Amino acid sequence: MRRILADRSARAAVLGARAALALAAFALGLAEDGAAKPVTVADLLASSPTTDWRVPDPEDTLYMDLARGRIVIELASRVAPQHAANIRALARAHYFDGLAIVRVQDNYVVQWDDPEHRRPVPAAVRRSVEFTAAAAAEARFEPLPDRDVYAPQVGFLDGFPAARDPRSHLVWLAHCYGMVGAGRDDPPASDGTEMYAVIGNAPRQLDRNVALVGRVIKGMELLSSLPRGSGEMGFYAGSESAVPIRSMRIAADVPDAQRTPIEVLRTDSATFRALLEQRRERHEPWFKYSPDRIDLCNVPLPARAIPSAGR
Amino acid sequence: MRRILADRSARAAVLGARAALALAAFALGLAEDGAAKPVTVADLLASSPTTDWRVPDPEDTLYMDLARGRIVIELASRVAPQHAANIRALARAHYFDGLAIVRVQDNYVVQWDDPEHRRPVPAAVRRSVEFTAAAAAEARFEPLPDRDVYAPQVGFLDGFPAARDPRSHLVWLAHCYGMVGAGRDDPPASDGTEMYAVIGNAPRQLDRNVALVGRVIKGMELLSSLPRGSGEMGFYAGSESAVPIRSMRIAADVPDAQRTPIEVLRTDSATFRALLEQRRERHEPWFKYSPDRIDLCNVPLPARAIPSAGR
Repeated sequence: MRRILADRSARAAVLGARAALALAAFALGLAEDGAAKPVTVADLLASSPTTDWRVPDPEDTLYMDLARGRIVIELASRVAPQHAANIRALARAHYFDGLAIVRVQDNYVVQWDDPEHRRPVPAAVRRSVEFTAAAAAEARFEPLPDRDVYAPQVGFLDGFPAARDPRSHLVWLAHCYGMVGAGRDDPPASDGTEMYAVIGNAPRQLDRNVALVGRVIKGMELLSSLPRGSGEMGFYAGSESAVPIRSMRIAADVPDAQRTPIEVLRTDSATFRALLEQRRERHEPWFKYSPDRIDLCNVPLPARAIPSAGR
Repeated sequence: MRRILADRSARAAVLGARAALALAAFALGLAEDGAAKPVTVADLLASSPTTDWRVPDPEDTLYMDLARGRIVIELASRVAPQHAANIRALARAHYFDGLAIVRVQDNYVVQWDDPEHRRPVPAAVRRSVEFTAAAAAEARFEPLPDRDVYAPQVGFLDGFPAARDPRSHLVWLAHCYGMVGAGRDDPPASDGTEMYAVIGNAPRQLDRNVALVGRVIKGMELLSSLPRGSGEMGFYAGSESAVPIRSMRIAADVPDAQRTPIEVLRTDSATFRALLEQRRERHEPWFKYSPDRIDLCNVPLPARAIPSAGR
């Protein structure tokens, strides 16, 4: 059978002898009988201890329900606390229900909001400039060794892709695929009433220019496969139909039976460190040239149904 | 009116005084009356001389016709001449007609081929290992000043995003959004009977591991918005329908009236250099923080209908 293009979640690939030798240099090693171990991401995750996973706080979990299914967003509530509070207040006021995805620009963003600003905004909602994190966040930054085109240093912050400037001690979230942000005005400030998700090659030029407020942890394909808008900047125009939002809810407000049980791999876990090595040094036989490095936005941030939940 | 998220093809933005001053340092400058000039990509392209554009050779232009429309691919025939010859021979033998897109993996690739290998392959088709370009290609490499995560140097080769290793003098095409490649076997070799297009964040780890054979220059959104496959690695499975390919044709074989007149901005043009500066240093008022650098795969490579063709 022909091999197909190797991919990010490829099925078990058994190591060749040369690759196994190289692999022994890092955490995975060989099985006790000396047999080569499979090293795909799927294998790593399947053998990970449950303590390497975390369940996002239901107060930080946003459900966007479309006719085509549910998108689950984890809010970066420690990095963008005002925006997270705003989005909670907006969801609780049913602000987004019946609004629509109004823009899908290829290789860029999906956007939803109230284009005519008719809906009342809850009084608790405050405009804010959370384009970088508060100073205390620097201590939580987990650096990657790899270089970056846009920032002096990249890594992870509270499980989200992030960047850091060691000179200014600033840290900020990075515009990787699947990240969710708050559209803003000029002069700069935003409140979460206009939201977008990144569906293309990481538009890192937006970093520090916009408040990123979270990440899609399930259902990304429901956004990325939407028809592109033919209007300027990908807005739906003419006879195209905007995509209605049935509801946006905070998981904590949703009855247990209607929640989506989901957990996310901890970025401070041994499994995540092994995953990083596996994605950086490609030992699968298919790879003839290992990059030995990884771009921040190519690092998988796995999420999965909670096994015990049985769904 | 509220501003919306700035984007890659934003409408005219008039420069503020500070930005105009900075802008004077490069090619665009100010209008003769000293008034600030707009500097969006759309403006740059609208004012570009026709000599800054090139029409891809019809022998290097591949039409993929789906029910939803036509995708136009420019073949990198000087970088991957054997693959380009193979794909021409396959298209002329109607090899792809009636085959289907069988895999759409989110944030990765769209793939089409003959999964059961029932179709006869023309005798002229030769398996090859064009994972890097021939030595002569190095002289045609146009470097970007920006750094890169994966390669010592990046830039453009024959109008395609590319990388270079100055030590080995190797150059190769880069897996940016919209690039088209030839799926391969292990041991490595490919013939163009299995093809894929990149629909996600640049999977640069594939560089030098696969033969890239071209780039989608029109209709990318028809591929990127396809429903994702639910099978392993995004293959369509169960009740999902693979997306039939009506035909794949070389433009030179298509009657004039059925061709898609299209031209591509030359990467060795003054307009392209101005565009690079505009994308690197963001002078639009919306941007509060200019990245002053650009990732290879974030550089727009504009294509447009040939103005004189009137379509």
